[in-house]
Amino acid sequence: MDEVRAARCYLAAVAEPPAPAVVAFVGRVGPVEAAERVRAGAVPGEVAKETSARREVVDVGAVAHAAREAGARLVIPEDRDWPSWPLLSLGNAMARGLSWAAQPLALWVRGAVGLADSLERAVAVVGARAATAYGEHVAGDFGHGLAAAGMTVVSGAAFGIDAAAHRGALAAHRNLSWPDGAELTVRGRTIAVLGCGVDVAYPLAHTTLLAHIANHGLIVSEYPPGVPAAKHRFLVRNRLIAALTSATVVVEAGRRSGSRNTASSAGALGKRVLAVPGPVTSAQSVGCHALLRTGTAELVESVADVLEAAGGIGEHLAEPPASPRRPTDGLNPEALRVHDALRPRKERDDTTIAAESGVPLTRTRAILADLELTGLATRADLGWRRA
Amino acid sequence: MDEVRAARCYLAAVAEPPAPAVVAFVGRVGPVEAAERVRAGAVPGEVAKETSARREVVDVGAVAHAAREAGARLVIPEDRDWPSWPLLSLGNAMARGLSWAAQPLALWVRGAVGLADSLERAVAVVGARAATAYGEHVAGDFGHGLAAAGMTVVSGAAFGIDAAAHRGALAAHRNLSWPDGAELTVRGRTIAVLGCGVDVAYPLAHTTLLAHIANHGLIVSEYPPGVPAAKHRFLVRNRLIAALTSATVVVEAGRRSGSRNTASSAGALGKRVLAVPGPVTSAQSVGCHALLRTGTAELVESVADVLEAAGGIGEHLAEPPASPRRPTDGLNPEALRVHDALRPRKERDDTTIAAESGVPLTRTRAILADLELTGLATRADLGWRRA
Repeated sequence: MDEVRAARCYLAAVAEPPAPAVVAFVGRVGPVEAAERVRAGAVPGEVAKETSARREVVDVGAVAHAAREAGARLVIPEDRDWPSWPLLSLGNAMARGLSWAAQPLALWVRGAVGLADSLERAVAVVGARAATAYGEHVAGDFGHGLAAAGMTVVSGAAFGIDAAAHRGALAAHRNLSWPDGAELTVRGRTIAVLGCGVDVAYPLAHTTLLAHIANHGLIVSEYPPGVPAAKHRFLVRNRLIAALTSATVVVEAGRRSGSRNTASSAGALGKRVLAVPGPVTSAQSVGCHALLRTGTAELVESVADVLEAAGGIGEHLAEPPASPRRPTDGLNPEALRVHDALRPRKERDDTTIAAESGVPLTRTRAILADLELTGLATRADLGWRRA
Repeated sequence: MDEVRAARCYLAAVAEPPAPAVVAFVGRVGPVEAAERVRAGAVPGEVAKETSARREVVDVGAVAHAAREAGARLVIPEDRDWPSWPLLSLGNAMARGLSWAAQPLALWVRGAVGLADSLERAVAVVGARAATAYGEHVAGDFGHGLAAAGMTVVSGAAFGIDAAAHRGALAAHRNLSWPDGAELTVRGRTIAVLGCGVDVAYPLAHTTLLAHIANHGLIVSEYPPGVPAAKHRFLVRNRLIAALTSATVVVEAGRRSGSRNTASSAGALGKRVLAVPGPVTSAQSVGCHALLRTGTAELVESVADVLEAAGGIGEHLAEPPASPRRPTDGLNPEALRVHDALRPRKERDDTTIAAESGVPLTRTRAILADLELTGLATRADLGWRRA
């Protein structure tokens, strides 16, 4: 491990994220000097607050060993694989005084694909753990559709919406073809961002799902291998899910769902926030409806809606679904009234039709002739019928 | 029947609504002269267009006879029972050039309660005929809750949402009490506004429902008794539903539902438009979601939401549903991290807790003492436990 990487590995393990003072300190003196001074305790007060608890405890060698065992690599801002562009939103937010938005000091990654590359077109699909069958259906459908359209799906690894979104994405296949005729079928790409080390199977029941994600996508965390899951870490992790994607879709959220936290982070970072409505009888849609009422989120109904909101400008434009056309659609109000006065099986004379429709008799006669031409009325012996 | 009433009865039967030229003509010369001149064919061209088809056909005596048979009365603008205040919105809209918003020339009414009185606090609950079980459940619930809160429910008489809203309102009971101790239980009040005569059972299957509504509320129409239902009349009727109420709630609406027409009329008349979201997998919620996306409607989830939007200012304020409180709700981020590092059954010493939480040891110790005071941590022989 080179000097810079070792320094960031140490700093990321010492400072519990978000660590705005350490991030600023690293920005001023560079990671190597920052790590040396943190280790020696020779740092300004704010930095000391964020580092004193673990500065003597962290063993970079042990962390590196655990990472090797887990097949995890460290991606740092000095790497080409660092997702600089999406994470810029955190830097901007911290510059505006939002200390929770401190950038990660480094990211631990498990999986065979590139991180920056995967995040070029990415959407977060998040929601309640206690999801309903409806929510899981929509999350799976969105995960599948987004991945099939070439978007990377980003979520946590919780039960409910998170898992359904990953499963949907993993079930998607994309056919890639090259100018020379070569073709390749690839699985949908999905990324799980964790609130614990990338080697920690949390929840335990998702051990297999996490292995699948690592095989076809990525598992990402700012916590070193071995760090256990904790409630506050999920909230801190949520800012990463929001930052790494261009839009966050909340599929289901209860009144106190952590997804609302992800959504407000996304909003504060200038990302699009999208919410799926649901039955008003469902406690798991209350959070989504709250986001919609306050104008925090835009309503999405379909993968096409999400692609339109999340894709590059003009890249995906959801076509408004065609309204079914009726034969009477082109008629003006008077003609509609005359048409309504016709009966399918009973002939009526033009005077009756005029009185029934309230349209003057001469106009009624002209309209009936028009309706005959367009095939909407039939002339019969004793009058007119609807065709 | 007095002269004015007979004149309006004649005009309302001659001119198919909306009849902006006739309404303006009556405004200029009064109903009696207007009726005489229409009958004689001595009217300006625009008025002639709206009256020529039926001016010789209408028999006021026959209309009055049919009305007596049906137990219907004619309410005219000259009556105290005329709902002038709600209908003002139509007058204003017509003054802005919206000819579809022409006021009714008169209203036919069946039922034992006052019209103007019933419409003092009224909400329209409308929606698709092909409603889902979800939509009917919500419409029934809203109809019941609004009527129980003293609001008059206004709708059509169609299958689906309309019928469910009326049934909900009819099932509601209100207890009224007077200062002298007298008490009375009354049924919820509901009004069906029809696109046919008030004596026409349309749809036929709603004969009993319409009778119930007439017994406890009102059946209202601008069409004279005997006038058959017609598609264009439902669209014209929709402006009345919108005008007679302070808010229109769309419970379910397909892509082409007539309820979207009622909603846009209500919007154009300056009334509140409210829409209930539903599953994105339901074709019957597509119209509601479209109203929400375009900002035409506001999202409502409950009777309380509707009362807040439709009630007088400050009359009904929906209390934000209380978020369930957790014992850790008051903790600052550092204290939360320390609390997360505690285990319920395993004691940990303060150094371990500090390292796990990343909070400096001295702060960790102070926080642990605080947590003990608030009952969230327990001090034990070998360290600390979560309480």
